[in-house]
Amino acid sequence: MKINPERLLGDLRQLRSFGATGPGVVRLALSPVDIEARQWLAARMADAGLDPVIDGVGTVFGRSRKPGPALLIGSHTDTQPTGGWLDGALGVMVGLEVARALAENDETRDVAVDVASWIDEEGTFAGFLGSRSFVGDPVEETISSATSRDGQRLADALASAGLSGRPRVRFDASRHIAYLEPHIEQGGRLEAAGKSIGVVTSIVGIRELRLRFTGQRNHAGTTPMSIRRDAGAALVAFIGRMDEAFRQLADADTVWTVGRIELDPGSLSVVPGQADLYLQFRDANAQRLWAMEAKLAELVADFNAQGGVSVALTAADAAEEPVAMDEALQAHLARAAETVAPGQWMRMPSGASHDAQIIARSMPACMVFVPSIGGVSHDFIEDTAEEHIVLGCRVAAEAAAAILLAHRSS
Amino acid sequence: MKINPERLLGDLRQLRSFGATGPGVVRLALSPVDIEARQWLAARMADAGLDPVIDGVGTVFGRSRKPGPALLIGSHTDTQPTGGWLDGALGVMVGLEVARALAENDETRDVAVDVASWIDEEGTFAGFLGSRSFVGDPVEETISSATSRDGQRLADALASAGLSGRPRVRFDASRHIAYLEPHIEQGGRLEAAGKSIGVVTSIVGIRELRLRFTGQRNHAGTTPMSIRRDAGAALVAFIGRMDEAFRQLADADTVWTVGRIELDPGSLSVVPGQADLYLQFRDANAQRLWAMEAKLAELVADFNAQGGVSVALTAADAAEEPVAMDEALQAHLARAAETVAPGQWMRMPSGASHDAQIIARSMPACMVFVPSIGGVSHDFIEDTAEEHIVLGCRVAAEAAAAILLAHRSS
Repeated sequence: MKINPERLLGDLRQLRSFGATGPGVVRLALSPVDIEARQWLAARMADAGLDPVIDGVGTVFGRSRKPGPALLIGSHTDTQPTGGWLDGALGVMVGLEVARALAENDETRDVAVDVASWIDEEGTFAGFLGSRSFVGDPVEETISSATSRDGQRLADALASAGLSGRPRVRFDASRHIAYLEPHIEQGGRLEAAGKSIGVVTSIVGIRELRLRFTGQRNHAGTTPMSIRRDAGAALVAFIGRMDEAFRQLADADTVWTVGRIELDPGSLSVVPGQADLYLQFRDANAQRLWAMEAKLAELVADFNAQGGVSVALTAADAAEEPVAMDEALQAHLARAAETVAPGQWMRMPSGASHDAQIIARSMPACMVFVPSIGGVSHDFIEDTAEEHIVLGCRVAAEAAAAILLAHRSS
Repeated sequence: MKINPERLLGDLRQLRSFGATGPGVVRLALSPVDIEARQWLAARMADAGLDPVIDGVGTVFGRSRKPGPALLIGSHTDTQPTGGWLDGALGVMVGLEVARALAENDETRDVAVDVASWIDEEGTFAGFLGSRSFVGDPVEETISSATSRDGQRLADALASAGLSGRPRVRFDASRHIAYLEPHIEQGGRLEAAGKSIGVVTSIVGIRELRLRFTGQRNHAGTTPMSIRRDAGAALVAFIGRMDEAFRQLADADTVWTVGRIELDPGSLSVVPGQADLYLQFRDANAQRLWAMEAKLAELVADFNAQGGVSVALTAADAAEEPVAMDEALQAHLARAAETVAPGQWMRMPSGASHDAQIIARSMPACMVFVPSIGGVSHDFIEDTAEEHIVLGCRVAAEAAAAILLAHRSS
């Protein structure tokens, strides 16, 4: 399947110019520059022979004029507050290039590829808003009440962009047979393994929890160690036990992170009376996540049974369960990768969240990764070698053709 | 030596009314209500037959009209931002009551007791400003450049209070033979031991240090545990080693506290790339403080030799060396305590800093403690039983008489 690398890279560079900040991109969902980028994207879709709409939440959807069944390829074009040029953007522009390439190829001239840029994957207002709307989540409440960190109301942002009240694009069971999301890896595993393509087996589940330790605030000079109930010291001791317990449960892909610690009152002269630990852990295996939660509850109970400092465990965010990628789509991507880049690909879980985990509720979904240089993302210096961008697009095009042709002949 | 408990408690209650906030007191150095309290105090000193001045930094000094030698008794009447009614205030009002009591007693009618309320012990602008000025520290630079946390300039506060350019009270070697500072304990050791009076042996030295851990900021989902350089996890591991090492070096009075931890960027989804730990430790033994510093430097070197996350140690504040209280004054206070409260007193170090550690540079100095209920201070609920306040004043009066009479007869 022949793609046009210069056209793909040219589109990516042009998209990068919307919100360009040094080597990075600042293009928050529904900001003026994001709306400009969406209008440009809709025009590029029209140039490619797709019928584009910007829907009632801001998702850009390019529908092939060909009758279904259709393969949907997409990702997002909004960015983090200090974002890179490829996170999300890559998958949308690869989708557009695959749609053009298949239309230009005799064998696939009649198949339908729809392309989507889901709004607000990065959560400026509400994470995954576009993909959630697409699969039929009740997002009306979100639309009317969500606000950004800066205090802007989502409803006002939609009104400013002229999108209020527009229809929202919805999953069409009579048309959409599968979803592919090409993406940068955002980690360093492909690079470390010397591979160029990752076929994603699953998107990990996530738990976010707060552990609050309550002791006794005291003068740090006049309170002997023997009578202290130091909430900070208890927190540190707990982390040691938790690390030990989690190491017993983990496999090589399990990750857990203490991203924030807050000691109260935070003065050098005061023994902390309260200490908060914010914990996140991720795994592709739902049973392991449950086992880690159970272990944590056990550690908390043991800790409280000791007396002294007490600890309370609460959810800091809703639990996300792991989402397995469709096996048949994995097989198509694996065959495409072996054709285009023999021996240079591997299967791997996605440690980051993606729109694909939402879309997978409605239809078979799968992802394909290209390497992130130095494993860096969510940063201005995020980058991927051009040859890997092109390779990823070739794999996506091969797989797309195979998926659609297999469906037609079945 | 007969004192007047009702007069003492009445004065303390009246001082409490300046800045009263619930059960606590907010009377920051040189605030309008603090200046009012100083004017009231100066008037009470005049009533007691002392010649009062409010000097060029705000210290209230009541000089006995009797010729020297004089015993100086004092503490401070400024408070913490959320202060209690006795921290500092107790020592000043006990000093005034002792001056009055000795003047009313035939045997001590002719001895001189001067009374001081040192400005800004609590460091609204510059900690120990009054006592530092008294002993001859070059404070001119401080007066012209210090600002409060709220951004107010010390020079402006002095001008507002009408104090700019006034002479500053200075230590008079031909007059002052010793300094006594009665104070609340601010800890729970007297209470725990069932004692009513503490004779202070030394004021502990303090070290305040920052340990900055530098690793690699990374995505908490896509970065396997095996390749992380997590600055927060390194900080936690370091604390474990430090606690173990310090426990080997410590005696029962050694204290160390991690009062603040900051992980950067502090997001649940990001492996911390930088982590700061703020450490304070205190001990009455200078050699032990040096040994703890040396051990810390050794732990830092060992840690850096491992590679991965690096750590850098810097001073967060100037080192304070321990200050021994004068042996002869301790003996006078011990005898007075045994007379007034037989078997109810103990010797103990002060874990908190006090003006006495500054004044001790110029003359023999010692402190006497009364119990803090529940060991609480620097808090609105700080309190001491009235019987302990009165007992502390009796011990101070007995000791003051003995010190002055012993000096006269020598």
